[in-house]
Amino acid sequence: MPDSGLVAALKKSEMFSSLDSAMLQKIASLARWRSFAAREMIFSEGEPCGGFYLLVEGAVKVYKLSGDGKEHVLHLVWPGETFAEAALFLGDTYPAYAETVRASRAVLFPSQPFLALLRAEPDVAIRLMGGMALWLRRLVGQVEVLALRGASSRLAGYLLGLQEGPAAVLPAPKAVVAAHLGMTPETLSRLFFRMEAQGVIRVRGRTISILDAPELRRIADGESDV
Amino acid sequence: MPDSGLVAALKKSEMFSSLDSAMLQKIASLARWRSFAAREMIFSEGEPCGGFYLLVEGAVKVYKLSGDGKEHVLHLVWPGETFAEAALFLGDTYPAYAETVRASRAVLFPSQPFLALLRAEPDVAIRLMGGMALWLRRLVGQVEVLALRGASSRLAGYLLGLQEGPAAVLPAPKAVVAAHLGMTPETLSRLFFRMEAQGVIRVRGRTISILDAPELRRIADGESDV
Repeated sequence: MPDSGLVAALKKSEMFSSLDSAMLQKIASLARWRSFAAREMIFSEGEPCGGFYLLVEGAVKVYKLSGDGKEHVLHLVWPGETFAEAALFLGDTYPAYAETVRASRAVLFPSQPFLALLRAEPDVAIRLMGGMALWLRRLVGQVEVLALRGASSRLAGYLLGLQEGPAAVLPAPKAVVAAHLGMTPETLSRLFFRMEAQGVIRVRGRTISILDAPELRRIADGESDV
Repeated sequence: MPDSGLVAALKKSEMFSSLDSAMLQKIASLARWRSFAAREMIFSEGEPCGGFYLLVEGAVKVYKLSGDGKEHVLHLVWPGETFAEAALFLGDTYPAYAETVRASRAVLFPSQPFLALLRAEPDVAIRLMGGMALWLRRLVGQVEVLALRGASSRLAGYLLGLQEGPAAVLPAPKAVVAAHLGMTPETLSRLFFRMEAQGVIRVRGRTISILDAPELRRIADGESDV
C-alpha cells in the first residue's frame, strides 16, 4: 500500500494529473521519498540515469559546467515540477548536474521499475501522454500570447490611430508597416490572422475593416490578448 | 513502404522529433494524407475521436461555440503542429471544432491503428514521451522568461539605482519593494532567487550584494534574461 502523502504529491503535479487513481497507486508503489540538504548534489552529468524526480519541497538547480568550471544554470526546478524525465524516457545518461539550492524533498521514480511499468501497462503511458499533450498545448498558447503581447498592443493602437469610419487603410505595404511597428512581417501576418480569426478585424489587402472596436481598444491597452 | 514525403513531414514536427528512423517508418505506414479546402470542417465537438492530425500546410482554427452560437477560438494551428492528440491519448471525443482557415494539407493518424502500435511497441510511446518531455521543459523555460522579462528589468534597474559601493540595501521590507515595483512578493522572490543562482547578486536579508554589475545592467536594459 503506497503512502497516501506520496499519492497526493503525484496528483498535484502536472506530469501525473491525467492518471486515474488505480494508475497513481501503481506509480506511487514504485516511487520513493528522498530528502536532501541545501547544496547537495542529486546527480552529475554523464552518470547513468537512475531515475527521475518530482520536487515536492525546496528548490533545485540544473546546470552544466563550462570548460573553465563556470556554472551555466539551465533551469531552476520548483515544487510540483519533475526533472530528468526526458533522460529517463530517452534512455540516456543525465545530461547535466542537479543540485539543491535549499533543503529539499523529492519523489524518486527509479528508471527500471518505472520503464517496466510503462512496458507492462502501455495504457499508463498513453494516459501520461494525454496529460503531457494537454500541458504542451497550454504552454504553446502561453508562449504565443506572451511573445505577441507587446506587438499586438502596438498594432491595435496603430490601427485605431488610422481608423476613419469603419476601417483603417494602411499607408504603406505591410512589410513597411511591420518595420515601422518594430516587428517582422511574419509577426504582423500572424497578428492580422489571429485578430481576423477572432472577429476583431477583417483584412482585405491594405484595407482593415474594424469589426469590434472596443475589443481592439482592449488589445491596445493590454487588457485583452489576441 | 510509406511515402518519403510523409516521413519527412513527421521528422520536421516537434511531436515526432525524438523517434528514430525505424519508429518513424512504422508511424508513417499507418498515417495518411488529408487535403481540405478553405473553411472546411475537419471535426466537430462531441464526435468520437477518429484520430489526430499533423498540419503540414495551411492553417486551422480550433474553437468552441457558446450558447448563442458565437465562436470562441481556443487556438490556431500552424504548419508543423499537431492537434487533437490529447483527445486521442485520453480516449475521448473531440472536445472542440476544428475548421480550416485556408486550404490545408494534413497528416491523419487514425486512432485505432495508432493506439495499437503504442500498445504493441511501448518503446515507441516511451521515445515519444521523451520528446514531449524535452519540448515541455523548453516551453516551461520560455514561459518563465517571457513572464518575468518586464519584472526582471524593473528589478535590475531598481537595484542599480540603489547601489552604493558593492551592494544595494532595500529601503523597505521585500513585500513593500515588490508592491512598489508592481509585482507580487512571489515574483520578487523568484527573481532574487534566479539572479542569485546565476551569480549576479547575493541576497542576505535586505542587503543585496551586486556580484556582476555589467550583467545586472544587461538585465535592466532587456538585453539579457534572468
